[in-house]
Amino acid sequence: MTLEGRFDEERGVVRVGSDARQRYHDSRGYGYPLEGNEIALAPIEAAHLLYRGDLEAVVDDATGERLTFREFVAREPGAKFGVRFLVYADLRSRGFYLSPAAEPWVSDPPTGEADFAVFPRGKGPGDGEVEYALRVIGERTDVPADELGDGVLAVVDEESEITYFEVSRRDPTGASVADASLPNDCEATLLADRVVVWKPPLSLYETTFYGQPLEGREYDEPTLQLSLLEAAYLAERDAIDLEPSTVRERGREVEGERFERRLAVYTELRERGVVPKTGYKFGADFRTYAEVESVENLGHSELLVRVHPDDYVFEPRDLALDVRLAHGVRKTMVFALVGETGGIDWWSLERLTP
Amino acid sequence: MTLEGRFDEERGVVRVGSDARQRYHDSRGYGYPLEGNEIALAPIEAAHLLYRGDLEAVVDDATGERLTFREFVAREPGAKFGVRFLVYADLRSRGFYLSPAAEPWVSDPPTGEADFAVFPRGKGPGDGEVEYALRVIGERTDVPADELGDGVLAVVDEESEITYFEVSRRDPTGASVADASLPNDCEATLLADRVVVWKPPLSLYETTFYGQPLEGREYDEPTLQLSLLEAAYLAERDAIDLEPSTVRERGREVEGERFERRLAVYTELRERGVVPKTGYKFGADFRTYAEVESVENLGHSELLVRVHPDDYVFEPRDLALDVRLAHGVRKTMVFALVGETGGIDWWSLERLTP
Repeated sequence: MTLEGRFDEERGVVRVGSDARQRYHDSRGYGYPLEGNEIALAPIEAAHLLYRGDLEAVVDDATGERLTFREFVAREPGAKFGVRFLVYADLRSRGFYLSPAAEPWVSDPPTGEADFAVFPRGKGPGDGEVEYALRVIGERTDVPADELGDGVLAVVDEESEITYFEVSRRDPTGASVADASLPNDCEATLLADRVVVWKPPLSLYETTFYGQPLEGREYDEPTLQLSLLEAAYLAERDAIDLEPSTVRERGREVEGERFERRLAVYTELRERGVVPKTGYKFGADFRTYAEVESVENLGHSELLVRVHPDDYVFEPRDLALDVRLAHGVRKTMVFALVGETGGIDWWSLERLTP
Repeated sequence: MTLEGRFDEERGVVRVGSDARQRYHDSRGYGYPLEGNEIALAPIEAAHLLYRGDLEAVVDDATGERLTFREFVAREPGAKFGVRFLVYADLRSRGFYLSPAAEPWVSDPPTGEADFAVFPRGKGPGDGEVEYALRVIGERTDVPADELGDGVLAVVDEESEITYFEVSRRDPTGASVADASLPNDCEATLLADRVVVWKPPLSLYETTFYGQPLEGREYDEPTLQLSLLEAAYLAERDAIDLEPSTVRERGREVEGERFERRLAVYTELRERGVVPKTGYKFGADFRTYAEVESVENLGHSELLVRVHPDDYVFEPRDLALDVRLAHGVRKTMVFALVGETGGIDWWSLERLTP
């Protein structure tokens, strides 16, 4: 026997009686129990039961209309209903139970921008455990940086395919050789947008991994090219004979405010024992090495770091591009969000297959 | 014996006498011949010979200064000298000869924004053959779309690594099943930012590859979800029962002017026998299939297409990201530049290892 539901406008739910509690809630995790055997379904849950053919129709007592899946979906307002339904159905089809991220569906709902609480595989709303908070957006929905939170972000693209991203706080740490071994006052020349150091000790490159040797000039002492970021950092520590303020000014000339943000991130990474090198070939600001003992035995770089101001607004398409590329080169995508006063929030985004 | 050069301010070159013609020009492709055995070197060529130790110094007759590589480089003004030198030296070290893209270095210099004419391996300036026109930029130099031209773009990143991109015109063509087989007036519902077609013939998806089936509902006729682009295209051809203007208006509401540009590109691709599907997972507008006979036997998609207005300004870092990602998934990155009147210019960018 297929059941029917009834709209409860006051609570914004669909009520189903008969043996709904046992059939839909207890055994399959839909809705929350009302009195007796009745349960209350969120519209998204009702839509899914209609879609599956488990619920025959939802009746509007005011008008007497009997809505099937098609009418029910057409009646649901709000741009988010469609994308939320697609994600709800996708996770259900993968064997997960999930509820609206709100009481009384779950007793301790996740905070922030979550749409659903997803339960561990094999568990349901009554088991008191939430696997992760899930936020659902369409690919055209912008995500302000301050809305990032631990959990999973599901993005539904224009053709209704879903990508899941795991979002986590990620403070990079490393154990690279410390700056104690830096040289003093090496002769350096500031060119248009880079710096040349003429005769630095080999260790500046080979141990602490600053700069890039000018190739093909074996007849002479090694000559290093530094990026403006490296040069600003080294000038600040008196390792090269340029004025820190001169280098930073040049940085701002060629790159604007972005230079100061990147320098803040560069500096914090170095101070955490992580070596940042340019991420240009990956379209990022930095790739990073957590344990550099020598360039000769350089390991795989672990992170791609992109620097943004902390009021940045992400477009999901750019997130997809960054995370996909990082995944393809076996690195983790990390966003460094720099505040007005230089404080940095670190977030990683990784593809997730539920 | 090492030679010395002299500045010729009038011509903006460095003159070298003695046996320079035979040593540097005839046998190694530097400069152009003057009278007798003298040759004229562009500053970049003189810098390279100084760098290699082939030229001992360049003398400034006015001041009597003798400039070695280090002083010569510090004296050369202009933001581009450094990056041009790095690329010149890199190609030389790979065994290529190259000249400034100007007379009298080459008799028929490439047009457009080229910095150098690169000769085929084993050939030089006197052989009358140019392999490609080469443009050099730093990673912070923006590239307006109307400056794209057939040739090679070398981008020098902040740490002085070089990436080479081959830029070519690329008009996509294909041989996919034509639209003659489209159905008529299928029932469709416009949701917030997508469309559902309720009972289309299977061929709409399986042969012509429109839409995406709503999964997990096998008990019923197939239900297709369409993107707004697919829906606008199909509505225009009376395949679904929505008003074309209604769908396009919705497209503009959720996506702005970008929707019209993307629809122009979508339409032209379809008319060329190429099937565009969303490129969201690759951060692009479309991935494309040139020969779709059925979805069951779908081949690999060949192109990633990104749509821009024709007055768009590219940032090299974004180019690096796009081209790298496309390469990683064995596709070619194509930019579709849409003009005010809807005309489309197609350009491909591919990584090149000289």
